[in-house]
Amino acid sequence: MVAERIYSPGLEGVIAAETRISFLDTEQEEIVIRGYNLLELIRQAGYVDVVGLLLDERLPNEQRRTELEKQMVSASVPEEVYQILAKLPPTMHGMDRLRTAVSALAGFDPEASTVDPQVERKKAPWLIGQIAQIVANLTHIARNGVPHHFEPGRGFAENFLRTIAAREVRAEEVRAFEQSLIAYSEHELPNSTFAARVVASTLADLYGALTAAVASLKGPLHGGANEAVMYMLLEAQTVERLETLLRDKLVRKERIMGFGHRVYMRRIDPRAQLLKATLRELVDAKGSGMEFVEMCQRGEDIMREEKGLYPNLDYYAAPIYYLLGIPIELYTPIFFAARSVGLLAHIIEQHADNRLYRPRVLYTGPRGLKL
Amino acid sequence: MVAERIYSPGLEGVIAAETRISFLDTEQEEIVIRGYNLLELIRQAGYVDVVGLLLDERLPNEQRRTELEKQMVSASVPEEVYQILAKLPPTMHGMDRLRTAVSALAGFDPEASTVDPQVERKKAPWLIGQIAQIVANLTHIARNGVPHHFEPGRGFAENFLRTIAAREVRAEEVRAFEQSLIAYSEHELPNSTFAARVVASTLADLYGALTAAVASLKGPLHGGANEAVMYMLLEAQTVERLETLLRDKLVRKERIMGFGHRVYMRRIDPRAQLLKATLRELVDAKGSGMEFVEMCQRGEDIMREEKGLYPNLDYYAAPIYYLLGIPIELYTPIFFAARSVGLLAHIIEQHADNRLYRPRVLYTGPRGLKL
Repeated sequence: MVAERIYSPGLEGVIAAETRISFLDTEQEEIVIRGYNLLELIRQAGYVDVVGLLLDERLPNEQRRTELEKQMVSASVPEEVYQILAKLPPTMHGMDRLRTAVSALAGFDPEASTVDPQVERKKAPWLIGQIAQIVANLTHIARNGVPHHFEPGRGFAENFLRTIAAREVRAEEVRAFEQSLIAYSEHELPNSTFAARVVASTLADLYGALTAAVASLKGPLHGGANEAVMYMLLEAQTVERLETLLRDKLVRKERIMGFGHRVYMRRIDPRAQLLKATLRELVDAKGSGMEFVEMCQRGEDIMREEKGLYPNLDYYAAPIYYLLGIPIELYTPIFFAARSVGLLAHIIEQHADNRLYRPRVLYTGPRGLKL
Repeated sequence: MVAERIYSPGLEGVIAAETRISFLDTEQEEIVIRGYNLLELIRQAGYVDVVGLLLDERLPNEQRRTELEKQMVSASVPEEVYQILAKLPPTMHGMDRLRTAVSALAGFDPEASTVDPQVERKKAPWLIGQIAQIVANLTHIARNGVPHHFEPGRGFAENFLRTIAAREVRAEEVRAFEQSLIAYSEHELPNSTFAARVVASTLADLYGALTAAVASLKGPLHGGANEAVMYMLLEAQTVERLETLLRDKLVRKERIMGFGHRVYMRRIDPRAQLLKATLRELVDAKGSGMEFVEMCQRGEDIMREEKGLYPNLDYYAAPIYYLLGIPIELYTPIFFAARSVGLLAHIIEQHADNRLYRPRVLYTGPRGLKL
C-alpha cells in the first residue's frame, strides 16, 4: 500500500488509536469526554464524577460517587515509598521523584503485573488516591521527610489541596482547584497518553504505563509548560515588564510557553477560556492577585496580535496554582495526578482490545559497510 | 489528505521515525546497524565496538575503544540507588525494580535534565555501565542487600557476566554472553525504542526515555518473552515432553513465546539463527546442556510445520543464559542493559532533530450527552 509509506513527523494527523474515551473536535470546538462536553463537566460536575465517568463509561450515581471518593481518599501510600522518596536528593526534579515513586508503588501491589481490565478498573480509584497523596507530599518529604495524610471525613479535592498547602483551605479555593483537576483530567491522545498506550500494548501493566506517562509529562514541550509560564509571570511582576519580556523573546525567536497547541492550532483552547474565568473568580474571592489577571490578559493580546497564537490550559492553570499557594515544582505533578484517571481509562481500554505498537522507520543511513 | 485518515492498529506498516541508526531489511534479510550487517558484528566485533559504532556513527579505533570500555567499567552506581533497591520487596518483578532504579539514577546526575545531544553522547557510556551494574546486582540486592562491583582491570562483558554469576567465568562463556549482548544491542523501532523516542520528543531527558523503555520491555509481548521461553524449557525437561507441551498449547490455541516477530513475519530471525550456533558452541565447550539444543530444535521443527512460525532471538538467548548460570529473572533486565546503547542512540537522534509525537484518534464513543 502506497499510503502506508507516507511519513508524517511526530505522527501529525495520523490516527494511532481507536477510542471511546475522548475526542478533540476542532471543527465544532468541543472537547468530548465519554459523550459529554468537557466545559460542562468543569462547570457543573465534581472531579469524582469525572473519575466515575471515565472509569465506568457513565456518570456515577450518589452511591457510586460516595464509594469512589471513599476509595480515593482512604488509599494509603506504603511507608517504603515515602522512604524511597526521602533517599532521593531534594534537588531532584519533582517529576523525576514522582516517576520513581509511581514505579516503586508496583512493589507493594500483589497484583501489580495483571492486565485484566476488570481488575485494573477496580484498582484505579485507589491508584488515583495514592498518586495524589504522593504528589501532595513531594515537597514535604524533600523538606523534612515527614508525609502529611488525607483525612477520611473530607472530600478528595479538599484533601488534595490542603495536604499540598498544609493549611485549612476555603471552599472557593477548593472549587478553583477542582476545576483545574477536571480541566486536566483527560484530553484524547497527547504525548503522555500515547506513551502510556504504547507501553501498555506490550501487555506491560498499569504501573509501567503510568511511569512512562510521568516521564513524558516532564518534558518542557508537554506538561512542563505550566511551570515555565509561572516563572515567566514571576520574572515579569508587572504588565509593562511582561510586555517587554515577551517582545524581547519574540525578537530573539525564543519559544514562549503557554501558547499554542498542536491540535487546536489557531483557535483558543476552550479549557484556557474557562480557567481564565476561574482565575478571575479566585482573585475576586481572595481580594488579591489582580496583577496576574492583567498580566495574563496583556500576554494573551500580544501573542494573538504578533503570532496569531492563543493561550493553552497551562497558561491559566499556573497563576491559579500560584494564588492557591502551591509550590511551583508541584504544578506538573498535579497535572499528572489529575490526568491519572484519563491515563488509566486509556490503559484499560488498550488492554481490553490490544494490538502491539510496532511501527517502522525511514532509514537514511549508510548501507553495505564491511568490517 | 485522505491518506492521513487510514488507521492501522498498532501502527503496523506506518513509518514513525526517520533514522540513520538501523533498519530491518526484510527483503534482503539483513539487519543493518549504521551500515553494517548485525550478523557480522556479532561474529567479528566486540560489544564495546558496537557501543562506539552506535554512539559515534563509526567503529571505534583502538584508543576510542579503550576509552569507552574504561568509562563503561568504571562508572559507579550511587549508593543511594542500591539503598532504594533494597527498600523494594524482593518479590517485586526484576524489571519493575530496574525501572525504579533507572528512574532514581536521574537524582544523582547534576545534568539529568539536559537534552543537548553532545552532552548526552558524552554521558552515554557511563549510563550503559551504570545500568549493567544495576542489572547485575538486582538479584544480589534482593538476596542480601550487598552489591558486587565491577573490576577496572577486566573487560565490560566479562565484568557484567562475572558480577551476575558471582564467580570466575571462562573465555567461551564471556564470548557467548557478549554475542547475546550484541544481538540485543539495537533493532530499529521495536515498542521499547518507539516508547523512548515518543517520550524524548517532549524534550524529556535520557532518564525519562530510558525508564519508559524499561516499562515497555517488561511486557510479555516484548522483552518478557525470553523468560517465558526458559520456563517452558524447564517445565518440559525432555524433547518428548516439550513436544507434548507444545502440541497441547497449539490445540488450546495458547500463545507460544519465542516464535514469530511482527517485522520478520514468516522468515527466521537472523539473530536467532546465529545464537543457535552460539548455544551449540557453548554446550560443546561446557560438555553439558545438550538437552537444550535438542529441545530447541524439536520446538523449532514443530512450530515451523504446524504454524509456519520461526524462532526469534529470545528463543535461543534463554538457554544460553541458563547454561551461563544466570537467574531467569535477569534475562529481560539483561536484554535492556544490552539494548541501552541502541536506546541512547535513538533518544539522542530524536533530540537532535525533534518533532513532538502527538497523533490523533478514531473516536467511536457517544456524542452530545447532557448533564
